[in-house]
Amino acid sequence: MSIGIIGAGQLGRMMALAGYPLGMRFTFLDKTSDTPGAQVGDIVLGDFTRSDDIRRLAEQVDLLTYDVENVPVEALKSAAGDTPIHPSPALLGIAQDRLTEKQAFAEHGMATAPYRTVDSLVDLRAAIDELGMPAVLKRRQLGYDGRGQRFIRQAGDIESAWEALSGAPLILEGFVDFDREVSLIAVRNRSGEMAFYPLSDNRHEEGILRLSIAPCADRTLQTQAESQIRSLMDAFDYAGVLTVEYFEKGGELIANEMAPRVHNSGHWTIEGAATSQFENHLRGILDLPLGDTSPRGHVAMINCLGQMPALADCIRYPDVHYHDYGKAPRPRRKLGHITAVRPDRASLDSVVDELLAVVRAAEATSAEC
Amino acid sequence: MSIGIIGAGQLGRMMALAGYPLGMRFTFLDKTSDTPGAQVGDIVLGDFTRSDDIRRLAEQVDLLTYDVENVPVEALKSAAGDTPIHPSPALLGIAQDRLTEKQAFAEHGMATAPYRTVDSLVDLRAAIDELGMPAVLKRRQLGYDGRGQRFIRQAGDIESAWEALSGAPLILEGFVDFDREVSLIAVRNRSGEMAFYPLSDNRHEEGILRLSIAPCADRTLQTQAESQIRSLMDAFDYAGVLTVEYFEKGGELIANEMAPRVHNSGHWTIEGAATSQFENHLRGILDLPLGDTSPRGHVAMINCLGQMPALADCIRYPDVHYHDYGKAPRPRRKLGHITAVRPDRASLDSVVDELLAVVRAAEATSAEC
Repeated sequence: MSIGIIGAGQLGRMMALAGYPLGMRFTFLDKTSDTPGAQVGDIVLGDFTRSDDIRRLAEQVDLLTYDVENVPVEALKSAAGDTPIHPSPALLGIAQDRLTEKQAFAEHGMATAPYRTVDSLVDLRAAIDELGMPAVLKRRQLGYDGRGQRFIRQAGDIESAWEALSGAPLILEGFVDFDREVSLIAVRNRSGEMAFYPLSDNRHEEGILRLSIAPCADRTLQTQAESQIRSLMDAFDYAGVLTVEYFEKGGELIANEMAPRVHNSGHWTIEGAATSQFENHLRGILDLPLGDTSPRGHVAMINCLGQMPALADCIRYPDVHYHDYGKAPRPRRKLGHITAVRPDRASLDSVVDELLAVVRAAEATSAEC
Repeated sequence: MSIGIIGAGQLGRMMALAGYPLGMRFTFLDKTSDTPGAQVGDIVLGDFTRSDDIRRLAEQVDLLTYDVENVPVEALKSAAGDTPIHPSPALLGIAQDRLTEKQAFAEHGMATAPYRTVDSLVDLRAAIDELGMPAVLKRRQLGYDGRGQRFIRQAGDIESAWEALSGAPLILEGFVDFDREVSLIAVRNRSGEMAFYPLSDNRHEEGILRLSIAPCADRTLQTQAESQIRSLMDAFDYAGVLTVEYFEKGGELIANEMAPRVHNSGHWTIEGAATSQFENHLRGILDLPLGDTSPRGHVAMINCLGQMPALADCIRYPDVHYHDYGKAPRPRRKLGHITAVRPDRASLDSVVDELLAVVRAAEATSAEC
């Protein structure tokens, strides 16, 4: 079975590393061969926004999937021909626009922040009047890791936010003063079997994920999230991993974003669950039985940004696992992650403190250079 | 860090899959690019018995290791130049000859079967007189998976055994009517740190490993084996994984063979231990801190010979893991393995029975074709 992955980033790389033992072969589509995926698989050089380039990949493989969210859906559908594409391009298109994404959330019983679409400064002022401040002005499309967003705290911020972001469709979201951010990694196979990982607690720094800890929630929240995502996945006859990021506030879940793919907040599953999100994504898109999603104790994943810590400084701790994506260092770039598995939360918290210090020290040294 | 692996079989493949997350790159030396290793890494085409070909690999990498046991030691040493080679070519040379192997075992306090070297039919008859029957006549070099051996049960077997094997240095070993076969996977780094996996119970069929189960022994046997192997590894300033296969008889360990490399009876460590033998081999040869070798419960590894079972038939069981090496089917060829992890031995035995039936059914279908 030959799988074509659109985008050769770290997500595709980890998908391939999970799929080789299952007897699969992997070919990536990306602009250069010095990418995390191409270091461990075959590469078709091209631009994943171009239909012709996607077609050259599709012709070589049995099935297409993607590790990037910004593949143009029409290009994808027209290029694929008879080659199946999973996850569903329909849900991919919906997730690419914060407006349609929120509409889909609402259709499946998920609360969202209050919002208004904004196409002019007049719209923006009207929306602020209705939703109040603080609020967050966001590009509807192509935002990630906090890019394409402006926080509006007071009237004086309105014009500068508009100037920074105008020129693309925008949305104003009422600010949610959340207690914490959590995400659920779900998976469905083409026959409709579903499985859910436990919710993870995600800590961001400057808009970029730093730390995920799982499990993190009681049965009530977990059941509520599973029920919502079950409904959403069934409606799209979805196959593969789907990630939903939530705010949690006063014990309630507020859906923030979804990603129709494996997700950074699920990297803990590689060593922290019986089956990783990467293997389960492949099982889902190939219509295989899904794997056990139970956690192996308490698990934390720490992102390494801009500079990897020394390997020996991390793996000297037992059951701590190092993941270097093979990327060139660049400030704040996600270069790798570290996972720690422990039998109880207290010992996990303790090793996370030590590992965070190691990770931050390496990043600080690099920043000084 | 760029690692050169001499031989691109499944052992090298699994080493690369374990090493990519650590940020390493892998280049294999083998005769064709359609090999398990070359499917997941770079390849230098060549013959690993030729010094010139090994040299071409050595020039491209930071460090050499091997996944085959029959690399000629002199070719290896002369080819490597300034590129470090681990594990120790000295111990590799000793392990390539059943006589020097037994002598090394004896020097480090390990019991062996009684033996005599045999260079003529006269030698063989004299050796049979001394050791009695049954006995096993073996080629001293290049034997594996039961090849190059003849069982001598009665006087009438002597000449036919001689005719089958003569032309190469031979050894006659007194037959050990063992209770079971066990092996210990040990690892040492260049600084001398050592770690040991629990002994595994290995069941063979027609001379080929079928099943390994770990842990399998009490503390007494484990401690005895560790102490012997510790002495052996220190004597050679060894780095990497070393495997020793033992017969167990009446609670005593009798050393049978060693392999200065990762080993089929250690594949259970991929999902069954906090750190796999493959990662620990890399840690050892790179002088990194070694990883935790404790088992995650009770673990079994089943070899798939000649024909892989269907993926879905195996992975429908929870915490059961499939490993397809990407090799073409051929009767009795090791094509892959399946690992099951369970919290207790009874539930492990139960799933092993079911998986063995699945594996054998696939093999039988193939044999009928």
